[in-house]
Amino acid sequence: MSQIITFGEVLMRISPRGYRKFIQSNTVEFFFGGTELNVGISIANFGGNVKHITCLSSDFIGNTALAYLNKFDLDTTAIVRSNRPLGVYFLEVGAVMRPSSISYNRSHSAFSEIKPSMVNWEKSLENGSWFHWTGITPALTQGSFDTLKEGLKLAKKKGMQVSADPTYRSGLWKYGVDAKEALTELLHCSTIFIGGINEMNEVLDANFGYSNDEFIEASKQLIEKFPSIEKVFDKIRTSINSSWHKIHARMWNGKEFKETPDFDITHIVDRIGTGDAFAAGLIYGLQHYDDTKSMEFASAACALKHTYVGDVNYTTVDEVLRIVDGNVTGRFNR
Amino acid sequence: MSQIITFGEVLMRISPRGYRKFIQSNTVEFFFGGTELNVGISIANFGGNVKHITCLSSDFIGNTALAYLNKFDLDTTAIVRSNRPLGVYFLEVGAVMRPSSISYNRSHSAFSEIKPSMVNWEKSLENGSWFHWTGITPALTQGSFDTLKEGLKLAKKKGMQVSADPTYRSGLWKYGVDAKEALTELLHCSTIFIGGINEMNEVLDANFGYSNDEFIEASKQLIEKFPSIEKVFDKIRTSINSSWHKIHARMWNGKEFKETPDFDITHIVDRIGTGDAFAAGLIYGLQHYDDTKSMEFASAACALKHTYVGDVNYTTVDEVLRIVDGNVTGRFNR
Amino acid sequence: MSQIITFGEVLMRISPRGYRKFIQSNTVEFFFGGTELNVGISIANFGGNVKHITCLSSDFIGNTALAYLNKFDLDTTAIVRSNRPLGVYFLEVGAVMRPSSISYNRSHSAFSEIKPSMVNWEKSLENGSWFHWTGITPALTQGSFDTLKEGLKLAKKKGMQVSADPTYRSGLWKYGVDAKEALTELLHCSTIFIGGINEMNEVLDANFGYSNDEFIEASKQLIEKFPSIEKVFDKIRTSINSSWHKIHARMWNGKEFKETPDFDITHIVDRIGTGDAFAAGLIYGLQHYDDTKSMEFASAACALKHTYVGDVNYTTVDEVLRIVDGNVTGRFNR
Amino acid sequence: MSQIITFGEVLMRISPRGYRKFIQSNTVEFFFGGTELNVGISIANFGGNVKHITCLSSDFIGNTALAYLNKFDLDTTAIVRSNRPLGVYFLEVGAVMRPSSISYNRSHSAFSEIKPSMVNWEKSLENGSWFHWTGITPALTQGSFDTLKEGLKLAKKKGMQVSADPTYRSGLWKYGVDAKEALTELLHCSTIFIGGINEMNEVLDANFGYSNDEFIEASKQLIEKFPSIEKVFDKIRTSINSSWHKIHARMWNGKEFKETPDFDITHIVDRIGTGDAFAAGLIYGLQHYDDTKSMEFASAACALKHTYVGDVNYTTVDEVLRIVDGNVTGRFNR
Amino acid sequence: MSQIITFGEVLMRISPRGYRKFIQSNTVEFFFGGTELNVGISIANFGGNVKHITCLSSDFIGNTALAYLNKFDLDTTAIVRSNRPLGVYFLEVGAVMRPSSISYNRSHSAFSEIKPSMVNWEKSLENGSWFHWTGITPALTQGSFDTLKEGLKLAKKKGMQVSADPTYRSGLWKYGVDAKEALTELLHCSTIFIGGINEMNEVLDANFGYSNDEFIEASKQLIEKFPSIEKVFDKIRTSINSSWHKIHARMWNGKEFKETPDFDITHIVDRIGTGDAFAAGLIYGLQHYDDTKSMEFASAACALKHTYVGDVNYTTVDEVLRIVDGNVTGRFNR
Amino acid sequence: MSQIITFGEVLMRISPRGYRKFIQSNTVEFFFGGTELNVGISIANFGGNVKHITCLSSDFIGNTALAYLNKFDLDTTAIVRSNRPLGVYFLEVGAVMRPSSISYNRSHSAFSEIKPSMVNWEKSLENGSWFHWTGITPALTQGSFDTLKEGLKLAKKKGMQVSADPTYRSGLWKYGVDAKEALTELLHCSTIFIGGINEMNEVLDANFGYSNDEFIEASKQLIEKFPSIEKVFDKIRTSINSSWHKIHARMWNGKEFKETPDFDITHIVDRIGTGDAFAAGLIYGLQHYDDTKSMEFASAACALKHTYVGDVNYTTVDEVLRIVDGNVTGRFNR
Repeated sequence: MSQIITFGEVLMRISPRGYRKFIQSNTVEFFFGGTELNVGISIANFGGNVKHITCLSSDFIGNTALAYLNKFDLDTTAIVRSNRPLGVYFLEVGAVMRPSSISYNRSHSAFSEIKPSMVNWEKSLENGSWFHWTGITPALTQGSFDTLKEGLKLAKKKGMQVSADPTYRSGLWKYGVDAKEALTELLHCSTIFIGGINEMNEVLDANFGYSNDEFIEASKQLIEKFPSIEKVFDKIRTSINSSWHKIHARMWNGKEFKETPDFDITHIVDRIGTGDAFAAGLIYGLQHYDDTKSMEFASAACALKHTYVGDVNYTTVDEVLRIVDGNVTGRFNR
Repeated sequence: MSQIITFGEVLMRISPRGYRKFIQSNTVEFFFGGTELNVGISIANFGGNVKHITCLSSDFIGNTALAYLNKFDLDTTAIVRSNRPLGVYFLEVGAVMRPSSISYNRSHSAFSEIKPSMVNWEKSLENGSWFHWTGITPALTQGSFDTLKEGLKLAKKKGMQVSADPTYRSGLWKYGVDAKEALTELLHCSTIFIGGINEMNEVLDANFGYSNDEFIEASKQLIEKFPSIEKVFDKIRTSINSSWHKIHARMWNGKEFKETPDFDITHIVDRIGTGDAFAAGLIYGLQHYDDTKSMEFASAACALKHTYVGDVNYTTVDEVLRIVDGNVTGRFNR
Repeated sequence: MSQIITFGEVLMRISPRGYRKFIQSNTVEFFFGGTELNVGISIANFGGNVKHITCLSSDFIGNTALAYLNKFDLDTTAIVRSNRPLGVYFLEVGAVMRPSSISYNRSHSAFSEIKPSMVNWEKSLENGSWFHWTGITPALTQGSFDTLKEGLKLAKKKGMQVSADPTYRSGLWKYGVDAKEALTELLHCSTIFIGGINEMNEVLDANFGYSNDEFIEASKQLIEKFPSIEKVFDKIRTSINSSWHKIHARMWNGKEFKETPDFDITHIVDRIGTGDAFAAGLIYGLQHYDDTKSMEFASAACALKHTYVGDVNYTTVDEVLRIVDGNVTGRFNR
Repeated sequence: MSQIITFGEVLMRISPRGYRKFIQSNTVEFFFGGTELNVGISIANFGGNVKHITCLSSDFIGNTALAYLNKFDLDTTAIVRSNRPLGVYFLEVGAVMRPSSISYNRSHSAFSEIKPSMVNWEKSLENGSWFHWTGITPALTQGSFDTLKEGLKLAKKKGMQVSADPTYRSGLWKYGVDAKEALTELLHCSTIFIGGINEMNEVLDANFGYSNDEFIEASKQLIEKFPSIEKVFDKIRTSINSSWHKIHARMWNGKEFKETPDFDITHIVDRIGTGDAFAAGLIYGLQHYDDTKSMEFASAACALKHTYVGDVNYTTVDEVLRIVDGNVTGRFNR
Repeated sequence: MSQIITFGEVLMRISPRGYRKFIQSNTVEFFFGGTELNVGISIANFGGNVKHITCLSSDFIGNTALAYLNKFDLDTTAIVRSNRPLGVYFLEVGAVMRPSSISYNRSHSAFSEIKPSMVNWEKSLENGSWFHWTGITPALTQGSFDTLKEGLKLAKKKGMQVSADPTYRSGLWKYGVDAKEALTELLHCSTIFIGGINEMNEVLDANFGYSNDEFIEASKQLIEKFPSIEKVFDKIRTSINSSWHKIHARMWNGKEFKETPDFDITHIVDRIGTGDAFAAGLIYGLQHYDDTKSMEFASAACALKHTYVGDVNYTTVDEVLRIVDGNVTGRFNR
Repeated sequence: MSQIITFGEVLMRISPRGYRKFIQSNTVEFFFGGTELNVGISIANFGGNVKHITCLSSDFIGNTALAYLNKFDLDTTAIVRSNRPLGVYFLEVGAVMRPSSISYNRSHSAFSEIKPSMVNWEKSLENGSWFHWTGITPALTQGSFDTLKEGLKLAKKKGMQVSADPTYRSGLWKYGVDAKEALTELLHCSTIFIGGINEMNEVLDANFGYSNDEFIEASKQLIEKFPSIEKVFDKIRTSINSSWHKIHARMWNGKEFKETPDFDITHIVDRIGTGDAFAAGLIYGLQHYDDTKSMEFASAACALKHTYVGDVNYTTVDEVLRIVDGNVTGRFNR
């Protein structure tokens, strides 16, 4: 059975319950996440065969993370271990006009010191048909960038589908490589672009606005510059406040523009990993449906993720399809 | 003091906190519920004298359930015990477009093996003035159907008011009896019908739509077919999603049609037992107010139940009346 | 560095989690609060130098309260201790149309038996530039009224700014003093009035309505009667239900009328202490900004408090200013 | 069925979990207790018919306490309500050489303001065959002393058994009555004395030591002075530290001396209410067994109470008898 | 890599925290266990390759159980699903002289309705080198007995090692088969007997006492009657009370008798699954060490299990060996 | 008032409750600790005036840590902040023969990058009379070693008492400095040595055994080599297992040898920070009592710390003295 490959850091998330701050309560919850892992687990929850590649700490925290991945039935055989600690992030969840706050402790983590020599890409991609990467990994360290690059080159050589979510986060990219150049190199190995105007402007050195027309024009230029890219998908979030968002999607698949209607997410439970849920929905969708239905599936999956605590999207294919079919009134499943 | 009699299964509900799934957290909460019990407790919380009749397991879980009923000051003297375990249901609470999910473990429970010989109906109904039953009980087993039937026949003979909530749930009715025939038999002992178009269509073999006009017509036919039935009450729920509903009620009391305005339940806390809260409000109301105010009281009680965690409606008569009087802005009680 | 002085009772708040009632769960949380303390802590969280004066019990509960105040870096050196227990209030948090309920156990608390001789006001106000009081303190006992009065007189003599929040709560004022007379005496020492039409009507023996015009007229009369008062600020709350409010502010500063637009608080987390957050925002604002910006700052601080569990407003100046600047969509802070 | 009557204050106990102090965690648990209530609930758990008489607050805390009593199937029909708050005590549980600490907030509680006119003793004792009182009640206020005295006089007149546990606690007896005189008056209505050398010395103005011989001599003098007293029971606790006690009992029944061997309580879970469990075991025992077995039953019940969290002894007659029969190795009940 | 096969029911365990009873707290924890599963997970935690075969419910509870098994990296590919609910047991944990109590809800569970046709034994045992079974499985239903028998016969045919833990539990064996006959049939397929005098007496129809001499004699007779059995291992528990046990082991391996010294388990954390930990230790040990060291390893593993909450033994080989080597003083691992 | 100065890293401790492992529960607790901080807080809880100097992260975790220190009324004015994250350690608490496990994430923490230029020692020690340091700080990084050295040199120059707890932990000292040389340099600034044979052997390059005679001889050599050292104190722990220790102390004060009897800690609650509690007791003791009583006070303080969850010793002087006076039976404080 052909595998979806995800590669990236596993972070331990630690957060107080119910909108509390760390200063308010010394009882907290932990989860494991990481943008690529979130995509992988979501696809596994759809029934996909997913291998996640990463470097975990060799202590009991790393063991706990590994058990967490196994719990979702990921293929963890390519995971390596290191004496460095696992990366951690602390989250204080906001509400209404109060934003959520995140503080990272990841800069010398087990994953950040990964090197190309630590991953046997030939063996790891043996059964791989799809590789998903994000802009977080190359932004961490030279080693994580190089390791990813090596994997993507092999993926390209093997003719795998490669989806790119080149999220640009300004707090990263501290180690000396130019973000635009690095992303350019990696995008040349990619076939599906999942990102918005900001990411396209970043790699195109352009200044497009947010209208559909400009999105189409930007997508065309992107595909021109990166001929390996076949399709561009964009998720659009309208935030009323921290607790209430609307989500819809649009795409340019090289031939036509499509967009989905808004999902109204009136009572957000957890905002983390919702973009990853979109990417996972898209990857699963493109393997099973046409472009339009894939985008609908991805939007519905993304909307559903807002209702789960933690980084993981627990939703199943049936549950997503029910939303796609318009059953959003939340009648009981008995 | 004349008693309201409720008869039905007591289930242990087990659910994770705060929209979590069982796979996410091994800390869970339990409650006791069951549609007829919920009605009974709600009426007891209004100050009514309620006797609940059921069969509980004889282990410490049954003891805990019994203590739970005593806590609400129900008359538990007619309860019997059995060596079978208490029925359980597992609940994962949804949000926004994600529906709640329920899984039952009740098919060989203590209650499901009840037999007419186990209940002394003469003694149990000695002080009874009202009997409330639902469509769940006859749907479980031959024994529960027969036991209920025996009780209802005696109630009719004694001239008690009998309210029927013939909820039809397709996952039940597995033991060989025809739902329509069984309900027909039981409705002939009933005086108040609490149910909607679906339930009327089921017992009338009809196909009415949801408009008020069709509701009136269906009600007329129902009363014609079941002359013991005096009044028909219907609760109408408009679901924006799992977290946001609107509720109103309508009735045909044999002479006139009335309906209440919508209550807007913008932030649902717990959806379970809200229909039971409506029935309880109605039973209490019809004993103290005219039809219109009873229906308003029932709607307000139902709306308030959406704000309590668990199966129980904790609201008092004063609190309901304040809502009936339009004080819905939630100012502090100090 | 000049100090803001707050004087008032510290109460232990005990409440179940997540909309539960005490009858539902024996696991509860405690916090410390009290209207003047809430103001003090909020200002300290803005970076202000705040001294809170109160009387705490001398047991381990009092020690815990003292540690709580120290945690927020308040100056606690003027606090006295007594053999009486700390005041307690029990809170059941409502939702949607269900109001929150409060039950007090404070009438013989450590603070309620405070006497003027227990506070060394000369020393306590040594570095004081601002004194904030509320209508709760004089409403408790003769001793608390007398002690406050003595402090306010000294504050006036020293030319300190004195802000008054003369909240009128009918459940108090049981000890024999006339509320209107007492408040009148204290308002003559005050320079900033934070309160609405009801409070103005109370001390003016008037009957003004809620319109802006009537607010202006009432403010004028108030300033006429109490020439020490320079400005009047009013916070206006529109309650859709317990879970959804809108907030805006208006003022009369002796020369002009100003009001702020509504903040829409669509998903209230905790309603307690939001008025105190407004007062704190105003006091901080008036020390750093002009009247209009002060009022905007106070409104935004008040809106933000609705998103924190407990009595304390944890928000910082930067966070408030971001809201004042219109960034209410709740994007992550990373 | 003849009733056991208990009369005394119901207190809300609030304590952090697992040896934590209030300063360490704001998540706490609450229970209801009170020495006479503990006795009553324990007897009810043995299957006894118990009526508890008290005064509860009329707020939701009082409602919660009432539901707690109902849960154990106590007869709560003689309970009165008041506008004063329920008494509270805060508990920090110690371990090893660290003692537990208690802080009370009860001096103006609902119960402390009880008056003889508030209890209809004639009606309350209608079915009573046994009355249990302790030295806490007369130590609180004149009203609680007077109310108890009136009840005891009627109990004596009706020929009821009256058990006295005249625990002397120095922190009480603040309202002006002499402890010795008050206890003397009440002991003249009593038939069973449950207490040790200290209590006997207090009412005899004597100075006996702790040896068995002195216990016998003291008991003889006690019975001489209080001819209504038939038997004296004493529970002896040897404390290795807060976590490890040994318990045994001795008695003088007017004719012979008996004592039980030590129970070794190697891992104490909760120390509160263990004396009350002894008294309850004795009262139940004396109604069903001879003196020796009663004392063994009481000791075993007391030992078992150390294994339950909270104030209540949950143990059943069968469970106690198993310990009395020497089965202390803790094999599973399946 | 050769696999260890375990076959048996997976139960959901639900229990309150910290010695509480269900009547005391509605917050509970759940775990998954089952005697054969516990053995399997423990061996997997030692690094063994374990396949667990069972039947799980097809609802979200079954999904959660499956994820739990995956978490420990068991091979779950042979697991089947059914529409029946998962078996549940409720546990109240005792302390000191109070025994723990268990109540089961398993008699119509998913596993209890397993049939031989549901398991493909040929495929399931393909890589199997060891099969472990217990006396619980044949005691449940005809189907579970038959399915186990079919598996054991194939295991014997393939020359696999078969360890038998024929625990006799009187509450089971309700479906009509004679326990002795059934166990006899299954023991003829077994090579390692893990059990004590009671189990040997049961299958030998004998009446041996507990001395070492009688153990040796019983073992000899057992091996004579069941020639496939090579070795007999017995774990001896001395219970001071529920919180304090001592454990040692003895064996007869056909040639010599050996026993280990006592481990003193002074503060038991959780007693469930400790026998399973012994069996797992033995199975792992016999694959890696000689008989004596295997028995020491098993005893140490068993002792360590008493320190983990839940049914699972989390200990690793290194941790067990440290205990075997006498390092029992609990110095920190940093 | 003269200050005690402590200098060292503040770590966030994260641990599951009740002997659970991270793999078992995603609900965990956090505390703040660090060996020097623990000493400081314990002395502050004795009423001492303590200034703790450290470097905290500038995020909300650092804010939370700062609030934690303020809560105990430490002088936090000399604390600096950095952009690096706070150090973290994860703890799994063992029981009986299972040791506790710790995993650190501290090697690039805020404190580990401290530099001498970041601390104004002149100002920081202005009111200092005592400086306490441990062997952890110089073992972290060159910067932390250098900063400590600068502080100690000034302390020596000012004639302050300097207590040294040169704990040697092999997992540290990774940055290139020789432990023995570094400790030698720092011990030359010290006046009180708190440590055992291992630490003395380390700095003396000796090989003394654990007998009292060898302790005396080692102490003499130590004082000879480090003439600034006046007294040597040693805490001796006898571990029965993880849950049961005995503690006593011995000293050589240059003139005589003394030792205390064992405290029997039969039910350990938390083992972390018990050595720090000893050091704190000693520092407080030597400021108020003679050597013998200081050692008794320190031993009792150490024993009491084993009964508190977390890193902090909450005990007060009165509580310690009660233990010193032999009241170890744990009678209630009411």
